[in-house]
Amino acid sequence: MDISTMIHEMALRARAASSSVAALSTEKKDKALLSIADRLEKDADLIREANKRDVASAKAAGLQPHLVDRLILSEDRFVSMVAGVRFVASLPDPVGETIWTRERPSQISIKKKRVPFGVIAVVFESRPNVFVDTASLCLKTGNAIILRGGKEAIESNKALAASVRAALDQVGVALDAVQLVESLDHAAVTELVRSVGLIDVAIPRGGERLIKAMCEAALIPVLKHYKGVCHIYVDDKADMAMALSILDNAKTQRPSVCNAAECLLVQKDLAPMFLPMVRAWAADKGVKLHEESQNWEAEFLDLELNVGVVNGVDEAISHINLYGSHHSDCIITNDDERASKFLRDVDSAAVYHNVSTRFTDGAEFGMGAEIGISTDKLHARGPMGLEELTTYKYTITGDGVIRG
Amino acid sequence: MDISTMIHEMALRARAASSSVAALSTEKKDKALLSIADRLEKDADLIREANKRDVASAKAAGLQPHLVDRLILSEDRFVSMVAGVRFVASLPDPVGETIWTRERPSQISIKKKRVPFGVIAVVFESRPNVFVDTASLCLKTGNAIILRGGKEAIESNKALAASVRAALDQVGVALDAVQLVESLDHAAVTELVRSVGLIDVAIPRGGERLIKAMCEAALIPVLKHYKGVCHIYVDDKADMAMALSILDNAKTQRPSVCNAAECLLVQKDLAPMFLPMVRAWAADKGVKLHEESQNWEAEFLDLELNVGVVNGVDEAISHINLYGSHHSDCIITNDDERASKFLRDVDSAAVYHNVSTRFTDGAEFGMGAEIGISTDKLHARGPMGLEELTTYKYTITGDGVIRG
Repeated sequence: MDISTMIHEMALRARAASSSVAALSTEKKDKALLSIADRLEKDADLIREANKRDVASAKAAGLQPHLVDRLILSEDRFVSMVAGVRFVASLPDPVGETIWTRERPSQISIKKKRVPFGVIAVVFESRPNVFVDTASLCLKTGNAIILRGGKEAIESNKALAASVRAALDQVGVALDAVQLVESLDHAAVTELVRSVGLIDVAIPRGGERLIKAMCEAALIPVLKHYKGVCHIYVDDKADMAMALSILDNAKTQRPSVCNAAECLLVQKDLAPMFLPMVRAWAADKGVKLHEESQNWEAEFLDLELNVGVVNGVDEAISHINLYGSHHSDCIITNDDERASKFLRDVDSAAVYHNVSTRFTDGAEFGMGAEIGISTDKLHARGPMGLEELTTYKYTITGDGVIRG
Repeated sequence: MDISTMIHEMALRARAASSSVAALSTEKKDKALLSIADRLEKDADLIREANKRDVASAKAAGLQPHLVDRLILSEDRFVSMVAGVRFVASLPDPVGETIWTRERPSQISIKKKRVPFGVIAVVFESRPNVFVDTASLCLKTGNAIILRGGKEAIESNKALAASVRAALDQVGVALDAVQLVESLDHAAVTELVRSVGLIDVAIPRGGERLIKAMCEAALIPVLKHYKGVCHIYVDDKADMAMALSILDNAKTQRPSVCNAAECLLVQKDLAPMFLPMVRAWAADKGVKLHEESQNWEAEFLDLELNVGVVNGVDEAISHINLYGSHHSDCIITNDDERASKFLRDVDSAAVYHNVSTRFTDGAEFGMGAEIGISTDKLHARGPMGLEELTTYKYTITGDGVIRG
């Protein structure tokens, strides 16, 4: 069967399953999730054997060590993956929630209700736990899911898919609620994002290249998570100790993540006092400073930091809107007026005043879990939790009402 | 200048204007809207002269009469276009609304606030009033807008653009808040929908061909309004008089619009009684019935109707989900259980019980005005009012909080 036909048939099966998945009660969905967690534990040896085969092939093929590391489903990672499934089962179900109701003068009664999308395609790269994480979130929100993982993790993903589907079967949930694309052909991704009418939304879980390729080919909506070029602007009315503490947290607590700071902007009058402190801190923490950056859009994801001097809050805002990635940006100041201006005019998903950018995270925002952090403005912006995996519909009732 | 450079420069100007437009107070935006309404009235002769030139060229070029009709900015249409601008000024402003606030255990305080998108591109076809309608809605929601109309209406659109921009200038709003693409080159549309980072969303206001072409080329999100293939399902537990009244309203009140019914489904046991009534009604109202349809996806937009017989609510739901356009569909029944099932399982933006599908409309839903009716599931579904022309951002405040 050619790849186009294969994806089309998978999408048809997912669409067919989606109505029964959408109609599942919260109780039944949670039962299915707990069944998945149990089954994964039961199949742990099989899954970890499959993972070892992937790791061995990757090493043999000379994959870079940090990419091999991402692939490994260690004991710790396995345990936390399974705990994640049970955690999703414990979260409140957004499906069916009535967002608002209106009684209109025309005598119709309107309810706006939260409902599943239908079918979601997730395309991910090396980490096999993403299969289980995203499948759990989609199942909880009543969506059918089609997953396509990286070629390095194919054995792990096949083993995880078999385990998850066996668990669904056991509790009587449609198997086609969770499908893995086993083909390694790149055309599969193109076919997925061109399945108009069958797949409602595609979510890339990977790097910029993957996201760009998907957007270029897509005819269906793609929820994007581009890079995080986050800024800390230190105003001349800042508390310098607070500024350094937030900078330290935002840069060094976990440099490899998207909500870590990549650029420090300092108000020019404060710079002669504050920059020497920054240099001392950087020397102490092993942070490489780029004080004459040629590349303000850099996302280091490492212990490196661009440093710029600006005239004040206006220039900081312009700089951030021009070079940033509209993810998370922060002002440190004790001046409420400047803070309000910054919070209003910085065009980012999360804008901070005297708080580390590291808080941009579904759990920290009280959403429970997250499937990603959207740098788009449509539908979802910032952390995407369960609610962001749903859409809404209007139901309208009346007693034979016609329009005049 | 080539078309690519021209669109890029327009998009840069719109982006630059967007921050000042986003920061305008409600009062200032309403003042600008009233200034536009006044100015349009003052420029009425100029605008209608320009429109007459378009109409004359269209007739000379042999454009079909119904397309020429759409182009005409008659006295009535002009008055209602200007009244529309004043009406938008009278509506509540969604920008700045706090959607929710959360105090988190980490000591951060989060506000989710409604904000403008930034820059919106609207591509429309023959009706020149769309220029003014959509520019008003975008301005009210603090968005900069780039418009591209049909080539038949170019003189009208240029005159409207000059009038609107003169009004903006008079009240001190950035001129680049409203820009018209004057080039008739089709490549302009492609360039608009590929302006990643400069234009946030594109909204087609036109037929299926335009929408498909935009989606095919797009790298930015497109909010789509595909066709309305709306269904009326008459259950065997229906009140037949009510069924006929709703069918009549949904099919004949305004057959050319997207929320008009295009297909009647009748439960098989009721068919022998109800179909003769339908035939009599159709003969009386001049509605052409297609009782052995080969084309269940047809959107007639005219006095024609597909008619099908189904076994019951389950088959009705499957038929609608398979052949419909996920716009508006209705069940007529006195059986609450079947009604609930239909409302839950029909995968459409608006699902009706004993109410005409004609109510799918921003004003009827209490949204004030609408820019279109989305058949997408992301961001906006169903009627798109002012709120749907906004996104949100999170602002996070605290007193030097860092992540542990």
